Amino acid sequence: MALTEVEVLSNGLVLAVEERPWSPAVAMQLLLPVGAVTDPEGVEGAASLLEGWLWKGAGGRDAQALADAFDALGVRRASASGLEYTTFAAEFLADKLRPVLALYADVLMRPHLLGEDLEAVRQVALQERAALEDQPPKKMFTALRRAVFKSPHGRNPDGEKAHLERATAQALREDFARRYRPKGAILALVGGVRFEEAKEAVEEALGGWRGEGVPHPPVELSAPHALHLEQATAQVQIGLIYPDVTPAHPEFYTARLAVQVLSGSSSSRLFTEVREKRGLVYSVYATPNGVKGYSYLRVYAGTTPERAGETLRVLQEEITRLSEGVTEGELERTKVGLRAALVMQDESSRQRAASVARDLYQLGRVRSLDEIEARIAEVNLSRINRYLRENPYRGPWVATLGPRKLA
Amino acid sequence: MALTEVEVLSNGLVLAVEERPWSPAVAMQLLLPVGAVTDPEGVEGAASLLEGWLWKGAGGRDAQALADAFDALGVRRASASGLEYTTFAAEFLADKLRPVLALYADVLMRPHLLGEDLEAVRQVALQERAALEDQPPKKMFTALRRAVFKSPHGRNPDGEKAHLERATAQALREDFARRYRPKGAILALVGGVRFEEAKEAVEEALGGWRGEGVPHPPVELSAPHALHLEQATAQVQIGLIYPDVTPAHPEFYTARLAVQVLSGSSSSRLFTEVREKRGLVYSVYATPNGVKGYSYLRVYAGTTPERAGETLRVLQEEITRLSEGVTEGELERTKVGLRAALVMQDESSRQRAASVARDLYQLGRVRSLDEIEARIAEVNLSRINRYLRENPYRGPWVATLGPRKLA
Repeated sequence: MALTEVEVLSNGLVLAVEERPWSPAVAMQLLLPVGAVTDPEGVEGAASLLEGWLWKGAGGRDAQALADAFDALGVRRASASGLEYTTFAAEFLADKLRPVLALYADVLMRPHLLGEDLEAVRQVALQERAALEDQPPKKMFTALRRAVFKSPHGRNPDGEKAHLERATAQALREDFARRYRPKGAILALVGGVRFEEAKEAVEEALGGWRGEGVPHPPVELSAPHALHLEQATAQVQIGLIYPDVTPAHPEFYTARLAVQVLSGSSSSRLFTEVREKRGLVYSVYATPNGVKGYSYLRVYAGTTPERAGETLRVLQEEITRLSEGVTEGELERTKVGLRAALVMQDESSRQRAASVARDLYQLGRVRSLDEIEARIAEVNLSRINRYLRENPYRGPWVATLGPRKLA
Repeated sequence: MALTEVEVLSNGLVLAVEERPWSPAVAMQLLLPVGAVTDPEGVEGAASLLEGWLWKGAGGRDAQALADAFDALGVRRASASGLEYTTFAAEFLADKLRPVLALYADVLMRPHLLGEDLEAVRQVALQERAALEDQPPKKMFTALRRAVFKSPHGRNPDGEKAHLERATAQALREDFARRYRPKGAILALVGGVRFEEAKEAVEEALGGWRGEGVPHPPVELSAPHALHLEQATAQVQIGLIYPDVTPAHPEFYTARLAVQVLSGSSSSRLFTEVREKRGLVYSVYATPNGVKGYSYLRVYAGTTPERAGETLRVLQEEITRLSEGVTEGELERTKVGLRAALVMQDESSRQRAASVARDLYQLGRVRSLDEIEARIAEVNLSRINRYLRENPYRGPWVATLGPRKLA
């Protein structure tokens, strides 16, 4: 298993390289801590608008020439702004590293940000925002997250309609200058590239990029409560959020194993009790989630209005019942499953680059597979059951969306 | 690049193995030609119900024991029934091949199919069917496909509500006996396993499985026409289906390159003209699609009611304009992009196993990367432009879904 070499470059950019000498390709993940949580007050959606606007021209190229240049290098790429950060992902053949980085340097350091190009970007962002209405699960979770956080972590990453409509080119350019900075940004490369070679190429392309972005706001929570959104849907969407431990917590893997017992596979409790035995839902899951500094367990089910009350009750019962402990068999199967999942997800360079960047963002270091395996192996039955007894999942925030309020 | 070894076993099962000696894991894709197109008349949804019912117990295990056994082996798995086939996908560590195959043999040859377990399976299938109402793009394409095909290829893979409700255990058991057969089924393995070793393990587990499934019905088309579904959505969903060439056609890669020019990247025409310049949509694409023996180009856009008319017009104009030809630059970038995409998607064992199985199903053979690259390299500007002139994309089926009919 390759180790990840990490170095902070002189401009504050964190470079991480995991060498895979057998691979002809390189997967890149650039993570910039520019997201909705640091959008300026009154310009919610600024990170989203900026991410779109960047591609309208940079360096010596207009939008079409820029896209053509990436295509001519055979780059598969995706970029997106989210709640906490904007990511630029790319995959390309290893011998194209330098010219690819040169293009990204133009986008990050020398975008044109012309006023005349902003209108189309705004329209696309408004379309995306409007599409939320036709995606009931996403709409429900957006409202639920807003209910959980009093801090900007409750914002909609797609922005607010009124803010998107009135954001000016000038305000966005100032925001770009303020937030698109190397210090605190993370560049992960996984694939057929050596660390020294990568470092040289990155310094050549991005060495002149300077400055520090803005700090993320502290997390502030509301008191747990329930909310209902009325909408004429066929299914009722149910979401729950329970407080959980962060990746830095000593019992993080203990909690992960417990959640796997709840919802890690088709022998897990939620799938068995809610779907397989009772046929209450087509889809049900519980998944670890969170923001930097605050983690939670996110639970979902979609069902018919008639079954919504029972579904919500069974969900909460199963989650509460975790505090009574798991069985030896459940723990063992879950350990095997988590280990296999880790080995296999690591196979994809793209996924590995994304998780290296995420680790550096959340923890400030990269967890190796060996470390994770050792931590998982350490969790025995008495430890997990004591943990669950002393730290029961309870007091969730609850959201429902559907044609009528649950009985 | 590893070659895929393919052999038809004595019971008619097609085994394909692509060795990746450096990988600790194996990705498996089992493709059974059991889908909605061969569902019995009046039992549309039978393939979907069977796929759910199988997991309720098989061999010496009940549902929980079966799921536990897969988990204890660290198998990540997914199964799904679709329009033409049911797939069983799994990833596991290479040394678990024999016990994993033994479990699948139970599921395929010795499922319990107990009447008492059917009700929960039925409820889950009905939930999935009902959820279609809350997924406007999927609902629109389901209606569009139904409009295109007069043959069973227009069916909804999730089945029909009334059929799902009245399907009896007896009818489903007979259907299982009729369709779950090895002849015509395909088992692809990609990863750290040798062909001979795999063949031995497969013969041991599945050698006693016997019989031939049912033939797929011939494709029958309607005359192209337009339809509108009225629903109180925020966005209008627009779908178009144009006739296209099948993978067996000598100009298949010529057409693929043309579609890439239209919609393969962010320098492609639809993205540029519909999204980037005009801001008409958040999402727009054209993608090759089809069923065995008939291929089509599937085009999608989602937009506001006010912009729907213009969006549909610009979409059709851009697609028609392909017949005027592509530029040298477009062709060259597209060739580079397609090649890079092929190399990179091949990296994932899971994706490779799925495409090996799909190739065998659609073409009866596996295309190697070398072959595809050679075919792409052969397409020059005069060839693609002559092809487009002589075979313009026109006469689509069109579906719209939204709050009102387009002007």
